[in-house]
This record gives sequence, structure tokens and C-alpha cells, in this order.
Amino acid sequence: MERIERHACFGGWQDVYQHASETLGCTMKVGVYLPPQAQFGDVPVLYWLSGLTCTEQNFITKAGAQRYAAEHGVILVAPDTSPRGETVANDPAYDLGQGAGFYVNATQDPWSAHYRMYDYIVDELPRLIAANFPATGARSIFGHSMGGFGAIMIALRNPGRFRSVSAFSPIVAITRVPWGQKALRAYLGEDPAAWKACDPLELLKSATERLPILVDQGLGDEFIASQLKPDILQAACAEAGHPLMLNLRPHYDHSYYFISSFIGDHILHHATALKLERSPS
Amino acid sequence: MERIERHACFGGWQDVYQHASETLGCTMKVGVYLPPQAQFGDVPVLYWLSGLTCTEQNFITKAGAQRYAAEHGVILVAPDTSPRGETVANDPAYDLGQGAGFYVNATQDPWSAHYRMYDYIVDELPRLIAANFPATGARSIFGHSMGGFGAIMIALRNPGRFRSVSAFSPIVAITRVPWGQKALRAYLGEDPAAWKACDPLELLKSATERLPILVDQGLGDEFIASQLKPDILQAACAEAGHPLMLNLRPHYDHSYYFISSFIGDHILHHATALKLERSPS
Repeated sequence: MERIERHACFGGWQDVYQHASETLGCTMKVGVYLPPQAQFGDVPVLYWLSGLTCTEQNFITKAGAQRYAAEHGVILVAPDTSPRGETVANDPAYDLGQGAGFYVNATQDPWSAHYRMYDYIVDELPRLIAANFPATGARSIFGHSMGGFGAIMIALRNPGRFRSVSAFSPIVAITRVPWGQKALRAYLGEDPAAWKACDPLELLKSATERLPILVDQGLGDEFIASQLKPDILQAACAEAGHPLMLNLRPHYDHSYYFISSFIGDHILHHATALKLERSPS
Repeated sequence: MERIERHACFGGWQDVYQHASETLGCTMKVGVYLPPQAQFGDVPVLYWLSGLTCTEQNFITKAGAQRYAAEHGVILVAPDTSPRGETVANDPAYDLGQGAGFYVNATQDPWSAHYRMYDYIVDELPRLIAANFPATGARSIFGHSMGGFGAIMIALRNPGRFRSVSAFSPIVAITRVPWGQKALRAYLGEDPAAWKACDPLELLKSATERLPILVDQGLGDEFIASQLKPDILQAACAEAGHPLMLNLRPHYDHSYYFISSFIGDHILHHATALKLERSPS
């Protein structure tokens, strides 16, 4: 991993790395915040998955998360949202192709050649982090919008892998809303089994690990009724008996102004879980 | 003032307004953060002056200041850094013209038609804020780099006007460094008296109000030796007997990662002064 940015921040370092991704077949960038505690030993890792149109930059410049990561002593890892480059398939729309990987493994042309964000987030990136940073084995995951979908979906599909999961404004009814339907159709085709395998609402039904899900959703969010539908997640969790902490926040929109207002609560949630003593899994 | 953005943020509102500026002869944008306390009565106002290349957006998206403004109950006002528009003089360089107003009143062609940022910040903007927002008469001012220069210069030239002043990485030796010399030559010509009137080092000598100056400067700042020279400010304050709190921060650079790390300390400094009981001035 080649370091391409380094900024002192809240006593630690906000870095950006670049690396050749085997999984994605392209060069990827990833933001890594190293808290001050990382100078003295291994610390837990909290993965952030960003939303549509984002790169690794949005979260690290706008969320104000470093303060809380420094307070609690966790590494923050913020990858890009898709494979990138001139040889990577793309689409002129903001909600498909580069900047819109949706954290799935594409099976359809032209996407299947590079769009394997699921494997990148679940396998390759954690291996790279473990090999290159002072990281304990304790991990948690959170994200925003498309990345909130990614975080919940990945946590539900990988029981035992994460200590905690949370999301801001997640796209949870992925098979029932325009953003999700468009992406799944493009990346996975019409195969119902493939859709089901990445549908949080289906995964909740058969979850073997009842990891509580923390969700913050702004009630002033322009996408709430059309794309986000938190009531569907609420009903699905209730039906499955899955613990959900859903904070519906009056006035807040879909922006990083919303995320920054509650990121401290989310990082506290994760830090609490990450610091629990556990036998190694 | 027309509101063109509104985002709920830390219990208050991060707004952006647009207005026709009489002083500048163009349309200007300004970020205004209204803390939750502003719902219940008048609160003090803290002005932020941004650095070279910035608009009103940089501070409001990257500094993470809203959290502290909400905690202490102060309005944050973050104007653009120059007049703007197709009819406004400009220069292809990043350090002259639009985005580089240097908070002075230009006397030279072609700049004198619009570049009156000193009057805009000192007179017009406070009048607009007083007329349109729940603001007490208590004001403080801070800024970054070019805006740190602006904050210190404006506070020194207007005794009694501000309760407190601070800066990140300010350009203090304005007449002795390339950024300052280029701007002063363009905007003010070669008139030594005009240069002297906006030189913090000269203003310190004759200051009638010994308002303590809080400065944070990163020691990893790429501009420290060529453009910022905090040792010159330190010597000038020592000579004048002017109180200076200079925090030299190892590793930190010139970016908003640095600003965000210490913005809480600066807002606390200002809030403390802004909340002191005083007879009206």
C-alpha cells in the first residue's frame, strides 16, 4: 500500500493509501485514520462504507469522525465506493457504475470484470489492513445510504465477523426501491436467488447472530419515502425479533451535516462493542 | 438575504445565504450556523474568515465547527473570500483576484471597483447579520491563513468591536512574504501608508486595546517558513507587550485536518469572551 496523503489530525494521522486490488483488478484508494493510541499497540478497526457518488474523500473530509476515533482509540477505514479507472465499466448515471458499486459481486457483463466490491470489503481490504496497520482482530462496520445498505448486508451475511453494525439513512429495501432495483438488475441480472442473497430484509429472517442494528434516519431526508423506507426495516426487524435501535431525527437531511451531527453516537456504539473483552473468534 | 441552503446540524441549522452586496457590487454568499440556543433568544456572533481559494463552503463542510458552536451557543458566520462574478476583475493565479480578496479595500485598477472586503467584513456583513438573525451585539473574529491575517488585522484596527480574536496559520508578516506583497501591490499599489495601515506588525505597535491573540500553527505546514513566519508575530507581540497565545503544533499541516483538530479550543476561547458580562460598548 502506497501512502499518498498524510495529515496530522486529532493527535493521530489521517492517511490515504493507494493499492493494486487483486479482487477489483484496478488501483484503489482508501482513507485510514490512525488514532493516537495506535502508536502504542494494536487497536480495533471500524469500516465506513460511503454512499452514491462518493470516493474515499467524502467521509474523511466531512464527517468529523476523527475526533471520536481519537477519543475511543479505533482505526477508521474508509474505502472508495467502486472500482475505478478508464478500463473499468461505467455509466453516465450517478447511481450506476463508478461511484456506485453497491457492495455486491457483479455477475453480469460489462460489470462482472471489476465490480466485486463485496469480496473487496469482506476479504481483501481486511487482509490488507491486518497486514499493514496496528489492528487487533476486532472489527465493526457502518455506512451511509448505499453504504448503510452495504454495512447491514455484509454484517448479516458474515455472522461473527463484526462486533457491531450501524447505518445512516440506509437503503434497506434494496429490492423494492429504484436505486436498488436498478443496481441489482445491472450487476446481478434477474436471478431472484442472487437478489435474495444481498437483501437485508431476507437476511434478517434467517440471521443466526442477533447483532443489534443502530440506524439514524433524518426525517427531512429527500429520499426517505422513495428510496430509504425505514418503516420497512423496522417491520422486518420486529417480525424477525432482531434488535433495532432506530433514531428518527426531525429536520435532518441526507447530507454529511446530518452524519456529522450523530457520528459521535455511532462511534461510541461501535467502540463500546469493540472494547468488550471476548475470547478470540 | 435569500436562503439558498438549509441543513439541520447539531440541533441547529447550517444555512447558506445569498445577498446583493452594496459594498462589493456583486452577489455574495455567506454561511450562517444558527445554534439551537438561537431559537430562544439572541446569541453572540463569531466571524470566520477563510483562506486563499476558499468560498463560503470550505469552513462549513470541513471544519467541524458546528458541534462547538452548538455547545456554546454562538452563531458562526462564514463569508466568501472575495467579490465574485463575471463582471468582477480576476487573475488566473490562485493567490490574486477571486478567492483572494485579502480583506482589504483595493485602491488600484482594476481591483478597486469591487474589492472592498475590509468594508464588507467590518460594516456591511455585521449590519446584515444584526438585521436578519437573533444576534446580540457581542462579536468575535477568527480565520485561517489569509483569513487569519484578516481577523487579526481587522480586530487590531477596530478596538472595542470584537470580544476576542484568534487565527490558524495566519499570514502575519503581510508586507514581508510573497503572498502578502503580491496582493498588497496589486490592491493598494506602492503606497507605504496604505501597506502600514493593514500590517498587523505595525498595528500591534500602536494598539490601544490589548486583546489577547490566540494562534495555532502547525509545524508540518508547508508554508510556515516562506509565508507564515510565526516567529515574526511572536517577536512583534513581545516587543509591543501584546498578549499572544501561540500554540506550535508538531506535525500538523495547513489543511482543514489541522483546523478541525483545534477548532474546538478556538471556539471555547471565543465563547468564554463572548459570554462575559460587560456593560454595552
